[in-house]
Amino acid sequence: MSYNLLKGKKGIIFGALDENSIAWKTALRVHEEGGEFVLTNAPVAMRMGQINKLAEQTGAQVIPADATSLEDLENLIEKSMEILGGKIDFVLHSIGMSINVRKGRHYTDQNYDWTQKGTDVSATSFHKVMQTLYKKDAMNSWGSIIALTYMAAQRVFPDYNDMADNKALLESIARSFGYFFGKEKQVRVNTISQSPTPTTAGQGVKGFDGFISYADKMSPLGNASAMDCANYIVTMFSDLTKMVALQNLYHDGGFSNVGVSNEVMEAFTKDA
Amino acid sequence: MSYNLLKGKKGIIFGALDENSIAWKTALRVHEEGGEFVLTNAPVAMRMGQINKLAEQTGAQVIPADATSLEDLENLIEKSMEILGGKIDFVLHSIGMSINVRKGRHYTDQNYDWTQKGTDVSATSFHKVMQTLYKKDAMNSWGSIIALTYMAAQRVFPDYNDMADNKALLESIARSFGYFFGKEKQVRVNTISQSPTPTTAGQGVKGFDGFISYADKMSPLGNASAMDCANYIVTMFSDLTKMVALQNLYHDGGFSNVGVSNEVMEAFTKDA
Amino acid sequence: MSYNLLKGKKGIIFGALDENSIAWKTALRVHEEGGEFVLTNAPVAMRMGQINKLAEQTGAQVIPADATSLEDLENLIEKSMEILGGKIDFVLHSIGMSINVRKGRHYTDQNYDWTQKGTDVSATSFHKVMQTLYKKDAMNSWGSIIALTYMAAQRVFPDYNDMADNKALLESIARSFGYFFGKEKQVRVNTISQSPTPTTAGQGVKGFDGFISYADKMSPLGNASAMDCANYIVTMFSDLTKMVALQNLYHDGGFSNVGVSNEVMEAFTKDA
Amino acid sequence: MSYNLLKGKKGIIFGALDENSIAWKTALRVHEEGGEFVLTNAPVAMRMGQINKLAEQTGAQVIPADATSLEDLENLIEKSMEILGGKIDFVLHSIGMSINVRKGRHYTDQNYDWTQKGTDVSATSFHKVMQTLYKKDAMNSWGSIIALTYMAAQRVFPDYNDMADNKALLESIARSFGYFFGKEKQVRVNTISQSPTPTTAGQGVKGFDGFISYADKMSPLGNASAMDCANYIVTMFSDLTKMVALQNLYHDGGFSNVGVSNEVMEAFTKDA
Repeated sequence: MSYNLLKGKKGIIFGALDENSIAWKTALRVHEEGGEFVLTNAPVAMRMGQINKLAEQTGAQVIPADATSLEDLENLIEKSMEILGGKIDFVLHSIGMSINVRKGRHYTDQNYDWTQKGTDVSATSFHKVMQTLYKKDAMNSWGSIIALTYMAAQRVFPDYNDMADNKALLESIARSFGYFFGKEKQVRVNTISQSPTPTTAGQGVKGFDGFISYADKMSPLGNASAMDCANYIVTMFSDLTKMVALQNLYHDGGFSNVGVSNEVMEAFTKDA
Repeated sequence: MSYNLLKGKKGIIFGALDENSIAWKTALRVHEEGGEFVLTNAPVAMRMGQINKLAEQTGAQVIPADATSLEDLENLIEKSMEILGGKIDFVLHSIGMSINVRKGRHYTDQNYDWTQKGTDVSATSFHKVMQTLYKKDAMNSWGSIIALTYMAAQRVFPDYNDMADNKALLESIARSFGYFFGKEKQVRVNTISQSPTPTTAGQGVKGFDGFISYADKMSPLGNASAMDCANYIVTMFSDLTKMVALQNLYHDGGFSNVGVSNEVMEAFTKDA
Repeated sequence: MSYNLLKGKKGIIFGALDENSIAWKTALRVHEEGGEFVLTNAPVAMRMGQINKLAEQTGAQVIPADATSLEDLENLIEKSMEILGGKIDFVLHSIGMSINVRKGRHYTDQNYDWTQKGTDVSATSFHKVMQTLYKKDAMNSWGSIIALTYMAAQRVFPDYNDMADNKALLESIARSFGYFFGKEKQVRVNTISQSPTPTTAGQGVKGFDGFISYADKMSPLGNASAMDCANYIVTMFSDLTKMVALQNLYHDGGFSNVGVSNEVMEAFTKDA
Repeated sequence: MSYNLLKGKKGIIFGALDENSIAWKTALRVHEEGGEFVLTNAPVAMRMGQINKLAEQTGAQVIPADATSLEDLENLIEKSMEILGGKIDFVLHSIGMSINVRKGRHYTDQNYDWTQKGTDVSATSFHKVMQTLYKKDAMNSWGSIIALTYMAAQRVFPDYNDMADNKALLESIARSFGYFFGKEKQVRVNTISQSPTPTTAGQGVKGFDGFISYADKMSPLGNASAMDCANYIVTMFSDLTKMVALQNLYHDGGFSNVGVSNEVMEAFTKDA
């Protein structure tokens, strides 16, 4: 499937770890739609991942960058403009990590050094990416910047731990920076709040399979897949959505606006 | 328990059907806190109810009024001011009814005459009450008007049927009229979005018991009872909450901001 | 500009009055993107409008229908399926009208017969359209239904009058019916909350020009135009947004998430 | 005015800097209502402030504590329980600080060391306070914990800078921790989103006076004062609001639900 929606557009895609990643699927779809891009990931994530395979498939170059390092980000953006031959039209931020989650620390028993590191990687990195783009005047007018988030920013999902707070902060950064990027550069910033998705990262969360099934049964259309998300991101990078800005966009089969579904009530009642 | 929070305050309480009603409990608590009021209900509801018993307990007079009839509302408000000896400080609107629910018509198979009648009783009546109070200049400055609502106005609860839409309309009316009542008369208008409550009216909804239990297990503090709600309403009628206006206030043990609780996930997982 | 995003898709577009209408622009853009459709409007609106011109431009047929009449809607949907040769993929509901606004009745002095008529035309009509589509099983799987709304459903814009309440009801109907349409038919229902737009209908609202300018200065990207909205609707009708459901989507240059802009503060401060 | 609403209740109040502080007014009102408490502030803030005067007026003891230091917080909570003779019923967190704001760094030109320090003081401190209370099992059942916040967490106020993001994080922490504190200890956690208030801290924000006036004219009831806020906090500490949990409560004269007021439109139109 290709509509040439992104023909001539240039971008940077953060966070394609492996073929389960939303960023990976997005890269594939953006490529099909005619967009060109640089792939980037943290050096440590790149060692684990298979990003070179994706780069080959999509004709992209890979530039390692630690998204918490201003120096790395400056290098990434300068090199990207050189490689792509001009300013940037689209950016996908798909980065998140909680050491408290990984190490099994409960939300009420945080190790605050880990909390701070997770915040830096998962949320502040988005500010750093945008500040670097902004200062270098690296975005074209009517460009589009997107970060992936999750509804734990609004409502409690107990096992999501401190990632909930990181996502709330990320979404606030999108609004705050989106105001200035919109006013000064005609660039739109939004977040996409995606269904729980069986990515390699997502699977680190305790009880994730049961939760995937729960979300699926709560959502009138079921869970949105990584590929669905990639398609949605394509529309948000295209010229057809120029005036959507400062929004948190739920892409979740309707989950966010369901109080309870009949299926979940049935499972609940049967158990009781 | 009494703090004399409402000493000297005068009001009108709509919708005390029987001792399960939130309005009934509110009347008892307002009386304890020193407030005086007129009780009112639709003539047909009064035949079914035991409002005279409540009137005796609280030293209140009862004035029947169909809340969809401007004539009845004018009479109610005039008489109330006579009885209470002055303008009104607080009003509780606790009225709701769906014929589609009662008659078992599915949301996708509405009888629109019934829909319209339900909207008139459940939502437009609140506008009519406020418009009548406003035109008669019947509210004291810093008075407080409250309507009871439910979270189905924001998220889908499939069996709640067209009452969801009625509650969304009711909440909008609270905001819209609240603006003018605030600006012109220093009167605050708010809605309280209460936990599902085993009132006589609530029990008409299909699968209500299972749902009560579900909501209880989703809410960190459990469901708020009718008496809890009465206590909360007392604070909202008091002089300590003068600047809370145009809000929809969740009174639900935290339900509204929980995505899923561990208890619900356990029940769900066990069933699967 | 054409991406063939809607090739092979069939639909119904309500509410194209004249070339200022969002529905009009949407028809043009859907046509360019390869979609086929039937145009419809109330008989009375059609006499005032120039819909036949649009029909010629887009190769569409016109079927008059009063969207408050189940009989008219049944006829419309049956005829549309005949003309288009199959089930429906997309529907745009762009209908709204307040007699209280037209006649200059203040929100605190409503004529309730007019209020009820406005509600029927502006909100209940959307339920009727969906109920008729649902009962006739007239939508294809993964079809998309959209209604246009305005942010007065969430926050007070004093001159918007009872249209605010109608829009709140409309959005609730989208969620409520969207649940069942999603679960049973894989059809997504959403509303788009558009910037104030200088349509012929919008211009009926008091002080509209000043308000357009205010909204423009509040929005980081300025107001979204009718054509911008048409482009956005195209994405929402396409296969790239299949999992967006039960949402109210702000399409407003960022207005909805701005508390105050520097420009508005400057104008405010200069005046003071 | 006293209703004895807090008779027998014991608490800790953070952030009373001087008599303009909301925390200061809250201490006075809590004292009037029969509550006992320990006052605390950062050692550096205490040197600038006049907290001893407040301590005298309210019969409170003062324990200095840096709210970013777990050691200080542990000492504070242990000593408070000794002084008050038992567990804690209420806590007010009124702490916020942005070095970027103080030093005039624009939001698009952050010094990230300062950003991180501000986040630690303004948001993470709230997690640390709650984690310390939780681990020490220092809260009584049905206790109430409140943090003060501002609507910049939801919508952009350009001069609010990184405090917007800090407040979004703070509100998320309230929800996340509120879930566990509710489930495990029957303690409710909420945030109050207050009108802009001419405190000594607030006055550091650029253009604050103009903004106060703007907010006042947008709000149907005008801005809520620090004393109004203190009154509202008293209700939230009382036994009458036991089931309000995980909420962000707007206390702002209605500002948050107004799109535009007639007064602001008039000022805007006159300028244009």
